[in-house]
Amino acid sequence: MIKIKHKSRIDEDMGFGKNPTQNNQRLLNKDGSSNIKRKGLPFFKPHEAYNSLIFMSWSRFWITISLAYVSINLFFAMVYFGIGMQHLTGSVSHNSLDKFLDAFFFSAQTIATVGYGHLSPSGFLTNIVAAFESFLGLLTFALATGLLYGRFSRPTAKIIYSKNMVVAPYQNGKGYMFRLANLRSNQLIELSIEVLLSINVMESGKTTRRFVPLKLERSSINLLTLSWTVVHPLEEDSPLINLTPEDLMGADAEFIVMLKAFDDAFSQTVHSRTSYKASEVMFDSKFAQIIKADENGIYEIDISKVSEYEKSFESEKPAFKQS
Amino acid sequence: MIKIKHKSRIDEDMGFGKNPTQNNQRLLNKDGSSNIKRKGLPFFKPHEAYNSLIFMSWSRFWITISLAYVSINLFFAMVYFGIGMQHLTGSVSHNSLDKFLDAFFFSAQTIATVGYGHLSPSGFLTNIVAAFESFLGLLTFALATGLLYGRFSRPTAKIIYSKNMVVAPYQNGKGYMFRLANLRSNQLIELSIEVLLSINVMESGKTTRRFVPLKLERSSINLLTLSWTVVHPLEEDSPLINLTPEDLMGADAEFIVMLKAFDDAFSQTVHSRTSYKASEVMFDSKFAQIIKADENGIYEIDISKVSEYEKSFESEKPAFKQS
Amino acid sequence: MIKIKHKSRIDEDMGFGKNPTQNNQRLLNKDGSSNIKRKGLPFFKPHEAYNSLIFMSWSRFWITISLAYVSINLFFAMVYFGIGMQHLTGSVSHNSLDKFLDAFFFSAQTIATVGYGHLSPSGFLTNIVAAFESFLGLLTFALATGLLYGRFSRPTAKIIYSKNMVVAPYQNGKGYMFRLANLRSNQLIELSIEVLLSINVMESGKTTRRFVPLKLERSSINLLTLSWTVVHPLEEDSPLINLTPEDLMGADAEFIVMLKAFDDAFSQTVHSRTSYKASEVMFDSKFAQIIKADENGIYEIDISKVSEYEKSFESEKPAFKQS
Amino acid sequence: MIKIKHKSRIDEDMGFGKNPTQNNQRLLNKDGSSNIKRKGLPFFKPHEAYNSLIFMSWSRFWITISLAYVSINLFFAMVYFGIGMQHLTGSVSHNSLDKFLDAFFFSAQTIATVGYGHLSPSGFLTNIVAAFESFLGLLTFALATGLLYGRFSRPTAKIIYSKNMVVAPYQNGKGYMFRLANLRSNQLIELSIEVLLSINVMESGKTTRRFVPLKLERSSINLLTLSWTVVHPLEEDSPLINLTPEDLMGADAEFIVMLKAFDDAFSQTVHSRTSYKASEVMFDSKFAQIIKADENGIYEIDISKVSEYEKSFESEKPAFKQS
Repeated sequence: MIKIKHKSRIDEDMGFGKNPTQNNQRLLNKDGSSNIKRKGLPFFKPHEAYNSLIFMSWSRFWITISLAYVSINLFFAMVYFGIGMQHLTGSVSHNSLDKFLDAFFFSAQTIATVGYGHLSPSGFLTNIVAAFESFLGLLTFALATGLLYGRFSRPTAKIIYSKNMVVAPYQNGKGYMFRLANLRSNQLIELSIEVLLSINVMESGKTTRRFVPLKLERSSINLLTLSWTVVHPLEEDSPLINLTPEDLMGADAEFIVMLKAFDDAFSQTVHSRTSYKASEVMFDSKFAQIIKADENGIYEIDISKVSEYEKSFESEKPAFKQS
Repeated sequence: MIKIKHKSRIDEDMGFGKNPTQNNQRLLNKDGSSNIKRKGLPFFKPHEAYNSLIFMSWSRFWITISLAYVSINLFFAMVYFGIGMQHLTGSVSHNSLDKFLDAFFFSAQTIATVGYGHLSPSGFLTNIVAAFESFLGLLTFALATGLLYGRFSRPTAKIIYSKNMVVAPYQNGKGYMFRLANLRSNQLIELSIEVLLSINVMESGKTTRRFVPLKLERSSINLLTLSWTVVHPLEEDSPLINLTPEDLMGADAEFIVMLKAFDDAFSQTVHSRTSYKASEVMFDSKFAQIIKADENGIYEIDISKVSEYEKSFESEKPAFKQS
Repeated sequence: MIKIKHKSRIDEDMGFGKNPTQNNQRLLNKDGSSNIKRKGLPFFKPHEAYNSLIFMSWSRFWITISLAYVSINLFFAMVYFGIGMQHLTGSVSHNSLDKFLDAFFFSAQTIATVGYGHLSPSGFLTNIVAAFESFLGLLTFALATGLLYGRFSRPTAKIIYSKNMVVAPYQNGKGYMFRLANLRSNQLIELSIEVLLSINVMESGKTTRRFVPLKLERSSINLLTLSWTVVHPLEEDSPLINLTPEDLMGADAEFIVMLKAFDDAFSQTVHSRTSYKASEVMFDSKFAQIIKADENGIYEIDISKVSEYEKSFESEKPAFKQS
Repeated sequence: MIKIKHKSRIDEDMGFGKNPTQNNQRLLNKDGSSNIKRKGLPFFKPHEAYNSLIFMSWSRFWITISLAYVSINLFFAMVYFGIGMQHLTGSVSHNSLDKFLDAFFFSAQTIATVGYGHLSPSGFLTNIVAAFESFLGLLTFALATGLLYGRFSRPTAKIIYSKNMVVAPYQNGKGYMFRLANLRSNQLIELSIEVLLSINVMESGKTTRRFVPLKLERSSINLLTLSWTVVHPLEEDSPLINLTPEDLMGADAEFIVMLKAFDDAFSQTVHSRTSYKASEVMFDSKFAQIIKADENGIYEIDISKVSEYEKSFESEKPAFKQS
């Protein structure tokens, strides 16, 4: 059974309650988001709409705003067409489709405030709609300006974590290890990390979930220049000492990783989270080397290999552990 | 009479002075703003105007800028009309209203920098005014860009608090409880909360108001993923022990809640405040369950029911208290 | 002579060195800026230009950008005029001044991207210049967008300090006091203040300047809702005990005030500084009341009277001191 | 050999590992960036592209966006030309080059949303492309707006450090000193500095690199108004005591400087780093005076002379050390 020694900090609360997990269910997803469904939220939420435009992927973003642009123009084209094409001076098309296209292009020229003028509005209604459309156009592009700036300037850590934890040789014993590196060229400074073990334990005859902070070889570094191999040494007071892979799986263990750093480029504190389930812990393995120094002593790191590990059957020296 | 035990922190200053309150008067409004009138402020305050455009509701915002757009165009239409419509090449209207409308639409095409050109300025004065108007238009929409970005990107906690406090069964006794949840999908991390009791007490024959910090079961959590039921246990050293609803009302008690968190999406510290008056405390009640786990163990929270509570006549187990 | 008791914190360093001041010379100006001349700076400093556009007054700002707009248009008008007016299709003016005005208005229509089209470029050179000008125009207004947003969104405390310090009755003795209030409607929270006394002292036969932190009745408050009267009580260990106005003047005393707060509206830490010279300390005075409660118990503060004080000849109760 | 006394903090980790350096190789470049090569990064990185546009020099920035503007217009000119010039109403040029130029200028008028209208699109394809181009143009300039704002508003310390460290007379002994000043007119407050000595030492027969924090005369100041001479006194417990220039060179010493401050203008924490290699330490030298007070006692600092030093052969008084 799992033994938990340093009781004092055991009450760490992750905001997940104490109900035991089951079926290898994650508390935190790999990308650090939490695994919760929410309902009963208010329907109209401008901030949520904005945030989802900020946080969606670039490809979805471009598709969304392109579709919005086309839709708005289709809508206004229908309005101009409905009012009557005789109010669009310069439209000399004869069939309906061409007339509608004229209305569509006039709309595009109006919303983007190009206004060539070979098509121009006449009559009260068409003029009012065109005035409104150009007003809307400017506001829409004002919004787009904010969205693009917001997407780019959002200070975020883009940390790559190794896909697995390994239990590798460490000093005279072993240690649980995972590895991380900075995917951005921004300098990250003043990094600190915390690793919590979420584990089902038996307490007074009932299964309950506990969060136990794990002691780390080093929980902070000044600069993240290369990679950082975070190590929990398997010392005597570790709750993981002598646990087999089966014990870990049985207790539905999850390692919750919380990283905090200061982004030097944007002068803001950033956070990153991830988690490792018991099934992602590789016993008797060690990480592959990803750092080498060239003949001038300049370090080079191959970030694509952060997750690479190899089996280590005998008790060897620890994997090259930079910082 | 109210007893206050832990004197040491009694001097907590809320910036409200020590005059007793009366008539169930709030110090803090439900939305966390303070209940103060200010006069003698300078008349012209660009920042205040900007801030009010940032903080007003969306409907007021759209009405305000639409009215501003129409007003500016009316103003410039009058100027063009006053200078003389013969200087608006392309205006072929015959009656004054149509001419004015031409001036209005020309203004709209100028300020939005559409410039179709079927109406164009001629003569020195009209040209100068049009040049100035397009300059103004660009600055105005520059401002609108900033306003829209400012409205959306302002980092704010959008916390929903239960409408009432309840005095519910807690462990072997009771506790004052309120509940909160995050209305946004932004992750809130590193939350900490402080609850101050503002209460009228008798001191050397004079009624004065005191602020007493209340001891909480837990004053910080790592992540706000579900809801958080904040509990002040009714232990022996609580200033609220043995107080009846009438005592609370008589002392014009107010519970001032101050929450601090880190918004993971925008990487900024956010604050939220609210308060509960004595009349909003429900004795012998408990909150309704709003969290359930589906068959896969994934939690679901119904945020619309955060305020729901039910009467609890016997001393039961505490309401399901997630974190 | 000035006695300084609590030696431990005497070494507080303000970054001004230890040379004694003279002639009532300030270290900090009233607005919190420091009184230093700097030379030898690099000549071209884009950030400084930007910052000065951010920090200049609104009237100077509008004049600066209006002049810039006119100057740029004059410059391009000269270029178009120099290339030849025959390349501005639509210009039918006959004399040179009118032709130049056509060029000027064409430039304005180009840089603001209005482009009515009654004037249009022809020929390679005029076309290239027009294409460049519209490009420049968009970038310039992009810059203006940033400037306007930057001016408005800059998180700053706008604190009004009383013009004078007073030495007023306080509890059973006296205290040095000044008063401050928030000019903005933004909520300021978690305020903390530090007051340093800068004073010339005799040490081993040499006059040198020392910075002594003054003990305050209260150095932090939760919320700044009304005004805050900051008090240094004249207790036995105060370096100011028994000092006469002449002593203060002779030692060229300056009280340096440093305030730190969290702006709730913009979620950022803000700072404010000011200073009081010996000549600005009013002995035997007290501040006028500026807070009153209406019949419903709602407080009202008259911010225009923050600096008002009155002579207090007898030892009275302290002036109404809200927090 | 290098002696390291205060073992406790010796484990300071810079994120550079413990491999000894060689050949006078820097860990930190003079501008504070680290000396690392990274490979294996994902190919498409929008944030990196954005960041490089934020961090590149102004001249490169202007060249980049100008080239982009010309390239995009060339591309669209080719598209319009390819579709057929008969669809550009108003183009009356006869030879191919002039026709292509018409297409180019039409593109420029479209992307900048000028739209004079003497050239206007006709036909489905040309109209669609023009509608797309104006859409793209608005987004591009939205991006430019964000870029310009981002470049200017990025909160950064612009600290000038003296090019060299000097070993100068200090009190009754000597000290390692370097000097810094603020290149910006922004007020920097709450400065703190840390200096780490990176040095190769012999440990159990193996050369390894150690990081030793150096004790400073003063590691923080309230305001950076003039310059700041940072001093490591050569006291008995200094790891540098009695070291000759040759010792320093032999151990491939590097002094790593990390500065943290609060930028008062933008209300944000800023960081700055630099390093000094052994070869940049000037023994028996002292910094030239750069501060003087005029007849009114107002200080003046000549920032262009921050790096100036002079040889000091006898043991003199320390160089004028402001703060």
